[in-house]
Formats: sequence, C-alpha cells, structure tokens
Amino acid sequence: MEKLQAFDLVLFGGTGDLAMRKLLPALYRRFIAGQFPAEARVVGVARGDLTRDAYRAQVEASCRNHAVDGFDVAQWVAFAERLHYVRADGARPDSFGDLVQFLRGREAFTRIFFLSTAPTLFAGICDQIGSAGLATSLSRVVLEKPLGQDLTSASQINAHVGAIFSEPQIFRIDHYLGKEAVQNLLALRFGNALFEPLWRRGRIRHVQITVAETLGVETRGPFYDQTGALRDMVQNHLLQLLCIIAMEPPATSDADAMRDEKLKVLRALRPIAGRDVLNKTVRGQYKAGAAVGKPVVAYLDETGVPADSTTETFVAIKAEIDTWRWAGVPFYLRTGKRLQEKLSEIVITFEDVPHSIFDAEARSQSPNRLTIALQPKDSITLTILAKNPGETMRLKPVNLSLDLADSFKTRQLDAYERLLTDIIKGNLTLFMRRDELDAAWRWIDPIREGWQQYDGPPKLYTAGSWGPAAANSMISRDGFSWNGET
Amino acid sequence: MEKLQAFDLVLFGGTGDLAMRKLLPALYRRFIAGQFPAEARVVGVARGDLTRDAYRAQVEASCRNHAVDGFDVAQWVAFAERLHYVRADGARPDSFGDLVQFLRGREAFTRIFFLSTAPTLFAGICDQIGSAGLATSLSRVVLEKPLGQDLTSASQINAHVGAIFSEPQIFRIDHYLGKEAVQNLLALRFGNALFEPLWRRGRIRHVQITVAETLGVETRGPFYDQTGALRDMVQNHLLQLLCIIAMEPPATSDADAMRDEKLKVLRALRPIAGRDVLNKTVRGQYKAGAAVGKPVVAYLDETGVPADSTTETFVAIKAEIDTWRWAGVPFYLRTGKRLQEKLSEIVITFEDVPHSIFDAEARSQSPNRLTIALQPKDSITLTILAKNPGETMRLKPVNLSLDLADSFKTRQLDAYERLLTDIIKGNLTLFMRRDELDAAWRWIDPIREGWQQYDGPPKLYTAGSWGPAAANSMISRDGFSWNGET
Repeated sequence: MEKLQAFDLVLFGGTGDLAMRKLLPALYRRFIAGQFPAEARVVGVARGDLTRDAYRAQVEASCRNHAVDGFDVAQWVAFAERLHYVRADGARPDSFGDLVQFLRGREAFTRIFFLSTAPTLFAGICDQIGSAGLATSLSRVVLEKPLGQDLTSASQINAHVGAIFSEPQIFRIDHYLGKEAVQNLLALRFGNALFEPLWRRGRIRHVQITVAETLGVETRGPFYDQTGALRDMVQNHLLQLLCIIAMEPPATSDADAMRDEKLKVLRALRPIAGRDVLNKTVRGQYKAGAAVGKPVVAYLDETGVPADSTTETFVAIKAEIDTWRWAGVPFYLRTGKRLQEKLSEIVITFEDVPHSIFDAEARSQSPNRLTIALQPKDSITLTILAKNPGETMRLKPVNLSLDLADSFKTRQLDAYERLLTDIIKGNLTLFMRRDELDAAWRWIDPIREGWQQYDGPPKLYTAGSWGPAAANSMISRDGFSWNGET
Repeated sequence: MEKLQAFDLVLFGGTGDLAMRKLLPALYRRFIAGQFPAEARVVGVARGDLTRDAYRAQVEASCRNHAVDGFDVAQWVAFAERLHYVRADGARPDSFGDLVQFLRGREAFTRIFFLSTAPTLFAGICDQIGSAGLATSLSRVVLEKPLGQDLTSASQINAHVGAIFSEPQIFRIDHYLGKEAVQNLLALRFGNALFEPLWRRGRIRHVQITVAETLGVETRGPFYDQTGALRDMVQNHLLQLLCIIAMEPPATSDADAMRDEKLKVLRALRPIAGRDVLNKTVRGQYKAGAAVGKPVVAYLDETGVPADSTTETFVAIKAEIDTWRWAGVPFYLRTGKRLQEKLSEIVITFEDVPHSIFDAEARSQSPNRLTIALQPKDSITLTILAKNPGETMRLKPVNLSLDLADSFKTRQLDAYERLLTDIIKGNLTLFMRRDELDAAWRWIDPIREGWQQYDGPPKLYTAGSWGPAAANSMISRDGFSWNGET
C-alpha cells in the first residue's frame, strides 16, 4: 500500500456522529494499512472542553465498534499517538488560537480542514480559517452534505468557502461516489466495449434508480423535517448515480474530465416546473406501520417533527435527459424512508427483441435487464432469456450474476476510507464541483416550488410498504413497473 | 408431456452400436415420459437371425446401462411390448418380406425408417423400401452421418434417397443440433435484444469453435482412417455451430426459414482452395502420449490403421465469411482426438474499448468474451472487466456465469431424445437440408484437395496435448491465441 504524503487532518465536528462512526474508524483502518507517513496527525476540533486522553478514549471506543478487521491494541496505541484534540468554535470569532498554535511550523505539509458540522457553520469556519491565516496553498477543505438548502443558500456557502479556498482545494463529499459499487459502475461502463452499443436510446427502454431505507428519521427529526427526501437524497446521491449512468465517455478519468461530463448531464435534465410536478413526481410521507417486523410510529409522531409537517419522506421522479443519447428514455428515481427493504440499486431495462422468431408460447415478457446493486450487497446481474430445458422452445429469464465480494477476496474499502485517501492525495474525481452542485440545485428547486404551488399534501404510505400507490401509477402510466414489484 | 401421433419406427442397424447406446435408450426414456401413444411400435431391423426375446434382452441390458433416471421394471415390460425385431438385409434384394408383413395394414400411421447403418447401405435400403412399396406418404427417413465422403458420394446417396422420399420427408441427423446448449444458443441470439448490436464486425474480433476429444479412434480405426477429422467433425458439427452463430435472424423458427439462413452462411464461406490450405488450415495426427494420465499409442499403431496413414486426427481452420456482418472477423475452428481435455465450446471475443479513459496501470489486456460451453457442462459465461477492490482503479476480468443444469432443475433431454421426438412430430428444424449438406461439402472438398496437392504429411502432436504447434502459429499470425492457452 502506497504511503500518503505527510498531512494534518483537522476534523471540525470531531466529536460528532459522522466523525465517530465513520471518519475516525476509516482513518484508523488506513493507519493499520500502513498508509500514514511518520508526520501525519489527526486533530479533532469541537467546542467541548475535552482532554486529549478523554478524546482518545471516545475515539478508541468507536474504533473498537467499527473495527471491521478486528481491533489491534498495539496498532491503536500507535494511532492514538497521532490523534489530538483542539478546542475551537466555528460560531465564535477568535476561538481558533489553539488551532493556530497546533498547526504552527507545519506549513510544508498537506493541511486538510474537514468540515463535519452543520452546514450553517461552514461559512463561519471558513472565515476564521481565513482570518487566522491557516489556509496555506497546500490546504484543502472538505465539505459534508447538505451543502445548503437550495441554490441560494448553496451559493452563499460556496462564496464564503471560495473566498478562502480555490476550487481545486475544495472537496465536496458525496459518500455514494466513494462506494465500491459506484466505482465499479465506472469500470463497467468504460472498461468494457460490450456495453457501449447498448448504452443509449433504442437499446435501453428505461432506467430505475432506487435508494430505499427501512430506517425512519431516527434522532434526526428536526434536521430531517427541514430537509426532506428530495434534498437529503435526490439532489446529491440519486442525481450523482444518474450522472454516472448517463454521462458521455470522458477522455480521461481525471477529475475535471469526469465532472465536465456529469455537469453536461445535469444541465440536460429536462426541467420539472410548475404543474409538471403533478405528473412527473410523487412525494410521500410514512404513516404508522411496521419496519422489519416491528411496529413503528408515523413520521408525524417522530421526535422533533411538527404534527402538521408536510415534509416528504419519500419521493419518486420521472427524470428525462434531453440529449441525443437519452431522448425518450425515462430515468425513474425513487427514494424513501421506512420502505420495505434496505436496497440501493440501478436497474437498466433493455428494449425487447424487435420481432420474435419463436412461437407465441415460447415467448417471455421479461426483457433483458442489467442490475447494479449497491445495497445490501455489491453485485452485478445480467438478466437474459435462456431456453427452458425440454423438447419445446420456451424462454425463461435467467441471471448471469457476479457477487463482487465473492469474486474478490480482498476486503472492499469503506466509502470514507477511499474518499479520505483521495482527499489526502488531492484526487478530486469523486467530489462534486461547484458548477455540478449548482446545476443539481437548479433542477431540484423548481420541483419544490411546484409542490408548494400546485401539489396537495404528501401522499401517505404505510411504513414498511414500497411507498404511496401514486408512485406505481406514475410509472404504470408509461407502461412499466418498479423493479421487484408487480 | 404431449403425446405423439401413432408411429412405427423401423430401426435399420437395430443391433448396432448407435442403436444400442443412444437410440433405443432414448426411445425408452420418451416412453417413460408418457409420449408413446397406444399404437406406437419400435422395430429393430438387422441381418442377424434373432428372436424377438433375444433382441429385447439385448435392448434391456442397454437401457439398464443408459437409464439416466433409474431403470423401472414395470415400465420396461410395457416398453418391451412395443419392441419388435425383424430380419432384413439392406445389401440383399428381396430380403424385406418380413418387414412388409410387419407393416401391413399400418399405412395410416407415421412410418419412420431410421438408417443407423453404414452409409454405403443407404442407397440399397432406400431402393428396397421403394420396390417393396413401403414408402407411404406418411413415411419419413432418417439418415445418420456420415452422408458420403465428398460432394459426389453425398449426391449419389441423396439421389437414391430422393428417388423414394421427398425432401420434407428426409431427416438428416446432426446430433449436435439436438444438444440443449445448441438450442440455447438459438435462444440466446434470438430471444435477447441485448446481443444483436454486438453480433457483428466492429464489435466481435474473432470467434473460436473447439470440439476436443480425449478419446482416440477406439474400435473405429478402419472407418476413421477412411474419414479423418475434417469429414468426421468439421463438415457437419463444427460448420453447423458456425452457421448458428453467424446466421442472420430468420423471420421464424420454422425449419426452412432457419435452414435458408444457415445455407446463406455456408455459401458465403470464403473458399479455401489450392495453396490457401498452407496458411488457413493445419492438419495433425497424434503420436504416442498420454490420455487422462494413461499412456496411449500413436494413431499409426491403432488397430485397423495402416502404418503409413496420412489421415488427420486433428484439424484447425481459419474460416472467413464474406458478408456485411462478418467481413474481417475470423472464425477459428479446431477439433481433434487425443487432445488434453474433452471440451466443446464456442468463444466469442469482442473488440476492446476504443480508448481507455483509465491510467495505463488500470488497464487489463483481456477483452470481453462470451463463452458458450457444450461440453463437459452446458454453461454460458460472459467475461467482463470489473474494478479490483482497493483505492486505485485496476481492472480485472470477472465472469458472469450461468450453469444451465443448475439453473433449471429439470433434466435436460439427451440430443437423441429431442431429435427422435422431432422426427416423429415431423419438425425438420434441427435437420440438415440437402442444399446445406451440398454447400458444406463444396467448402470441405477443396481443402482435402489442397492438402493432397500442396501440403506435406500431417503435423504430429503428442497425445494429450492441444494439437500441433502449427495450430498455434496459425492463430498467432493474426495476433490471437486459442482460448485457454497462452
């Protein structure tokens, strides 16, 4: 494993949920993998008055919980030597004294400011990094989602961040892009000549992208109620998956070549404006039901959610891309909480044969399908028709399958392990550029405006179902059905 | 299982090897499957003076050996009631008296003359069927390979048979066409829209068809020495497989629609004439070596083979098809005895990506491949490149596989079970039409003539190897290698 260059990783929100559950365990695993150079340090930053030992005890507990390959005490002790804690408050000016002290004399190293805080703090933190003179030319800043609530607020954040850091220093995380299965989707599309002639209108009938969760809003009620599924999931994860499927082949896999192509897709998304939302979107909200066999409350009864909230916990969208390649090929997006299964998948349904040479009795209604599963397991499945054994020709769907975990015995990197490594290396490929983010908001904002102006309240669906019936009506109007449902 | 119409199946060569090993056990299995109507009879015909009971005892022993689903005594007793024996000699005129007697009054039933004898007897048997007045309008005749030794002798046989039976009454067997995997190849090609845009020049780089045997000539020495691999295997089996891969989509799966398309392929095969044989063919003959771990003798030391024989036991051919679809796509054919493995497979190698977007280190040399295995197991495998897990993008070949026996739990029909059922039903799709046969000989004959005129003796290869080194040179001149060899 290649060693990284020396770095200081400054983790704002260092005692937060994401840092504890994901980021610090991922760093610990990269340390065990031998990627940390001698000079590398990780420093948690938060408002709390915490000793270094108390912080390390917290992180240790967390790393034990998320060890993956087993927890090694000797390795932990070595990692803990690199782990520091510094008190600072992004909302309080002139609170960065300790941090300045901590980073003094380390200007020759890569310096990473990882903002794992509420987005309302992004501007303030960047301002203070700037005024404290901490932003060296070797600095990078990492922004976690949500990057604003709409184009206006996103632009404000980007303006503040952009005043201190240049665009190539800014790493906007969409952790979906770090998933091995998403990486594999790129490999599939651009490593194999096989799919190229199939990857277009006339060959593909429709595409479905589903990100379904069984969880409810859990402890995130107040935040979620301000956000909703459209902004929490579609604006970032689902649109990024759509881009990777729909983008033209870039000339290289360099960050800007890839992001240029994704941007072109986002800009070619047909706007869904005004009354379009009535035909092309469905928003839903879960009522009481069951999740994985246990009774669960309605969204409106979740802690921190107003009893009259109209926030959507489910959204289905028919997206269209106005390009030569994709004209007439609908992309159906669907995401929600408290759905029947935890499932992330992309299903590409190919056109049927233009003419059947076989008797009517031989035929099967199932056209060819390529399924790329991201959750619960990474897998690629090609569904084709084969002959059912016997004297007559009868076609039956069969699956050519590839379980990625089975095929490759090496452990897959966690999305954050990959992304943190890329950040330290300065590889921007898997991060969103400002213009991408803006283009995504430009498509998302009119949908929310349409809902406010023309749509009724969200359609209710029972927790543990596949969402409101209206989502089925939307797709069946086009003559299709959601994958896995009949 | 659908019942067949009532029939008399007259099996010439009824005590022969093929009848005992394949045909009668296949009929017995179709009987168990409930396909025999009340009036159906099977009658073995041979020169020997055998009682019905003695014949039934022979067949019983054979059915016990080839029972597949287990031998059921009650079923056997019921089948034996349908089984008869009649003495007749195809080479001796006026010896069909008993057969005439046996068939009298059964003119309303389908009557099948199955000629499982030496092809030298085909003409005589047909003449006598004619002169004895046995050829009703409901009669069919089934001819086993080899149908002659070249175009001239095949035409003679076809003329004799054609004088008694019309073309739609003639079933020329190529048992490869009855194999489930070959049926599946048709299903794959014409049941799935997925493959159509890939199935052509510009998308396919080359095709390989391999039928490899570990067996030597066994007890067939004298016959084989008169035949050789080109006529024993290429003229029929390998060319039929080539046709199924290369044919244009027929309008229907009707016999003549399919056979018209196969014929077009055979007629579009670029002739290999004169000195072409030196570049486009390799013939080989095995010397002593090992088969499946045991020492075996050279072909020239096999029983019944002349010590100076130049008969080929191996042949490799670069075939080209002069059509819009296939111009520039070589079809490499290879078959032989005493090779390293028992293996029948078709490997379609697709073109590589036109341009790699990934770094040089990410690339893999393996292009996409579709492998259709007929032996030892029926399977379909699509080889694509996927990302090797880890932080960097490295492509590795992975297989999307479908084991047909695993996917469908029902037992697959033996090739002869399917073919016999088709014969009784009158379905000609899987049988060769006269013009197909003629076209195949028209392409094969000049190769043999070229060998006689320009080629040296066959290249020797060690039994248990993959054939002579010249076969590797032939394909590597084009920049390729045989699948499975490096």
